[in-house]
Amino acid sequence: MVTSEYQITGMSCGHCEASVRTEIGRIAGVQNVDISAKTGKLSVSAQDPIDDAEILAAVDEAGYSAVRVP
Amino acid sequence: MVTSEYQITGMSCGHCEASVRTEIGRIAGVQNVDISAKTGKLSVSAQDPIDDAEILAAVDEAGYSAVRVP
Repeated sequence: MVTSEYQITGMSCGHCEASVRTEIGRIAGVQNVDISAKTGKLSVSAQDPIDDAEILAAVDEAGYSAVRVP
Repeated sequence: MVTSEYQITGMSCGHCEASVRTEIGRIAGVQNVDISAKTGKLSVSAQDPIDDAEILAAVDEAGYSAVRVP
């Protein structure tokens, strides 16, 4: 299992979390998503590594922007 | 046309507005809904008066609380 972390800006509530969670959940191979509107932290776990660009595009699709946290 | 105004607390973003708008829209007779997460103002227009309790219950269903503004 590989876990990657991202910092999202602009979320304000549980609806925002849910919209990002839905978009990330559409990505093939995603097994777990932890997300907090309060901290902006997003953690995505998958069996095999997922391309950051795919994660960032999903966040963008939900209406927010994110950066990969090393 | 009758328009009634309410003050909602707790909305933070467009998703919140949309969830209240959806619930208010389910009420028979509602013709127009103006809502702002920023100000918390909700304005509901209908051909015939709608019972405040019905509006307040819809807001509650969306997860917020409101009071009628005289």
